[in-house]
Amino acid sequence: MSEDMKKAALDYHAYPKPGKISVELTTAAETSRDLSLAYSPGVAEPVREIAKDPENAYKYTAKGNLVAVISNGSAILGLGNLGALASKPVMEGKSLLFKKFAGVNSIDIEVDSESPQAFIDTVKRIADTFGGINLEDIKAPECFEIEKALIETCNVPIFHDDQHGTAIVTAAGMLNALEIAGKTIEEAKMVCLGAGAAAIACSKLLISCGMKPENILMLDRKGVIHSNRDDLNQYKAAFANDTDKRTLDDAIEGADVFLGLSGPDLLKPEQLAKMADSPVVFACSNPDPEIKPELAKQTRSDVIMATGRSDYPNQVNNVLGFPFIFRGALDVRATVINEEMKVAAVHAIKDLAKQPIPEEVIKAYGGEQMTYGREYIIPKPMDSRLLGEVAGAVAKAAVDSGVAKTPYPEHYPLKSIADIK
Amino acid sequence: MSEDMKKAALDYHAYPKPGKISVELTTAAETSRDLSLAYSPGVAEPVREIAKDPENAYKYTAKGNLVAVISNGSAILGLGNLGALASKPVMEGKSLLFKKFAGVNSIDIEVDSESPQAFIDTVKRIADTFGGINLEDIKAPECFEIEKALIETCNVPIFHDDQHGTAIVTAAGMLNALEIAGKTIEEAKMVCLGAGAAAIACSKLLISCGMKPENILMLDRKGVIHSNRDDLNQYKAAFANDTDKRTLDDAIEGADVFLGLSGPDLLKPEQLAKMADSPVVFACSNPDPEIKPELAKQTRSDVIMATGRSDYPNQVNNVLGFPFIFRGALDVRATVINEEMKVAAVHAIKDLAKQPIPEEVIKAYGGEQMTYGREYIIPKPMDSRLLGEVAGAVAKAAVDSGVAKTPYPEHYPLKSIADIK
Repeated sequence: MSEDMKKAALDYHAYPKPGKISVELTTAAETSRDLSLAYSPGVAEPVREIAKDPENAYKYTAKGNLVAVISNGSAILGLGNLGALASKPVMEGKSLLFKKFAGVNSIDIEVDSESPQAFIDTVKRIADTFGGINLEDIKAPECFEIEKALIETCNVPIFHDDQHGTAIVTAAGMLNALEIAGKTIEEAKMVCLGAGAAAIACSKLLISCGMKPENILMLDRKGVIHSNRDDLNQYKAAFANDTDKRTLDDAIEGADVFLGLSGPDLLKPEQLAKMADSPVVFACSNPDPEIKPELAKQTRSDVIMATGRSDYPNQVNNVLGFPFIFRGALDVRATVINEEMKVAAVHAIKDLAKQPIPEEVIKAYGGEQMTYGREYIIPKPMDSRLLGEVAGAVAKAAVDSGVAKTPYPEHYPLKSIADIK
Repeated sequence: MSEDMKKAALDYHAYPKPGKISVELTTAAETSRDLSLAYSPGVAEPVREIAKDPENAYKYTAKGNLVAVISNGSAILGLGNLGALASKPVMEGKSLLFKKFAGVNSIDIEVDSESPQAFIDTVKRIADTFGGINLEDIKAPECFEIEKALIETCNVPIFHDDQHGTAIVTAAGMLNALEIAGKTIEEAKMVCLGAGAAAIACSKLLISCGMKPENILMLDRKGVIHSNRDDLNQYKAAFANDTDKRTLDDAIEGADVFLGLSGPDLLKPEQLAKMADSPVVFACSNPDPEIKPELAKQTRSDVIMATGRSDYPNQVNNVLGFPFIFRGALDVRATVINEEMKVAAVHAIKDLAKQPIPEEVIKAYGGEQMTYGREYIIPKPMDSRLLGEVAGAVAKAAVDSGVAKTPYPEHYPLKSIADIK
């Protein structure tokens, strides 16, 4: 990032007031009477109603449209473990995106503890405050244990965005990339470089979408994860294949897909050269991809390329997912965000990329023409149709899979956040 | 409360959207560039700055103007232990008052645990998220242990409003009432009916303001707290006096002050009749006072009376205190809210009642004329001068007592919440 951009980022966070979010009133508080309704003595009435039936919290408090973004700061962006407080700008940023894109009220909570059990206990005790919980920037493998325990104990949807948000958006782009390459997900052979939370979640969701487990070769820092390794945690071990391939050089030979969730410049041109025809390369290390798009295209012109960056085509950006996934989940009071809802989100995002692009979206990106194809496999963050499409698909999947407490909303599909009830 | 009022209170909480607060953006999020500053990659800059120096969280995040209102729901208003979730409307109401009166961003957190240690652990771990913590509706005696432990471990001010907010506003009114009665706090004899969190905090703060411990007779459900009782917790025991008085009938004889923080109709007319000349009666049980003002005045015309109700003169209302106390504490980055700051708040509120009342305040209360005296011993909640006076006094006391991390603000005294930096 340039020095100018760094300064702009700090200024953005410091002005007009420190931070990016505020809490505002949604009801009148102008007269004595207003105050006697908002607080004592009037407030005793909703208290009594909730004491009678906890479901009334959705009727009389902000809970139903409130998501906590919670981190312990143990894996902040690509920066590593910088502690809970240092993660606050990221978590506030997530809250900003929740509100901006999907009208979800969201507040960040930083939990100052690296003990998974302490984190679980803390979140469990405060969970009822919220309608849903977005976990963020928690390092693997602790994040798996944390997420599992919270899903088991909490009454509200728990979603670790670094895992599932990344997986959903990646899978949506990947399905389109494979289609454009003239391949099917059932036959595609993938090399996944990286074996952290995102890599594992992406691989799992791609399997839910049709990829064959035996077609995935996952690599951690020590090389290919195979059945003869005895240094694997249970999460990595689930992806161990019986293979004699040991290095990226071995694995990449003939692969249809490279999924990078690792670090800068780890895919060499000579490795890309060994991939199958029309190779799909998702180089998602941020900000510096596993291979630079210029270099990849120079190496072979048939590559279909995605990165995590907004300054190249095909940005794999979680903001295409999490705001709308929670929107849909909240609007049908889903108790969890299950596999059906995740797969529904994948297909909604994937299908939207094939629709003609409205003028307003083209305008928002400086008039750049975009048509479904190699340079446009996935929608842009500013595409306002994501709200209706993704929230609608997630809500429907929640209802159909039996995890929704209320029916598919009458006011759906949403055209804009002004439609949110 | 009338049925109409009950319905109005429920409607107020259900419309236009459930609840009373929302989270909004304070920065632009319209363009791709905005998003790249608010979130990845730009957000990495403030993250790095905070990792270098935690103090930078005050510069680049909303922390410095964000107060959590936290409860376990174990003593909700006068309704008792109805559980964490049922307390949410009260806590959201408090957040509304924080924003409305003092421009403090505030979010409620309900902690679902009655174990004091679990509550302490939970709040301790999330405390760094906020610039301050307002504890609320936690039952005694657990609230004392919880507050003490959190003050010891947290880096941000911890304030249990049911104790200290109540005490500050009560003491302010009491000092004025005694002055009008022609008495001094040093000589005044007080009967305190009730020995819960508020009663103990009020008595302590009155002592800080000059009342003699030996002049206070406190009563719990079993009668006067005296040195020969062996059923007292440490908090009550601190108020045990060596006396032969055992009942309210005994204690009230010749008392200058009655402070009721107990229940409806517990002060009988014949007991009021036995008090000293110009008795000061604070009947703060809500919504039904220890003696109705009509009955008190009928019993003796020289009574100076306050209640917790807005429909009688002299309402002891915490909203006169907590928003401005936190405003002042946040604006000088006080690490605690100490006794000096509380006493400063008492005097600021007390002194403001003696100032001529602006037309706008009179108008807000339907044109009712108010002059310092028996029927007006304490300012009204809608008095916008409270912000400047109380926040200023608290900030100054924090600086003078050495608990402020930044100097007395240049933009003080605040004229309105628009002045807040």
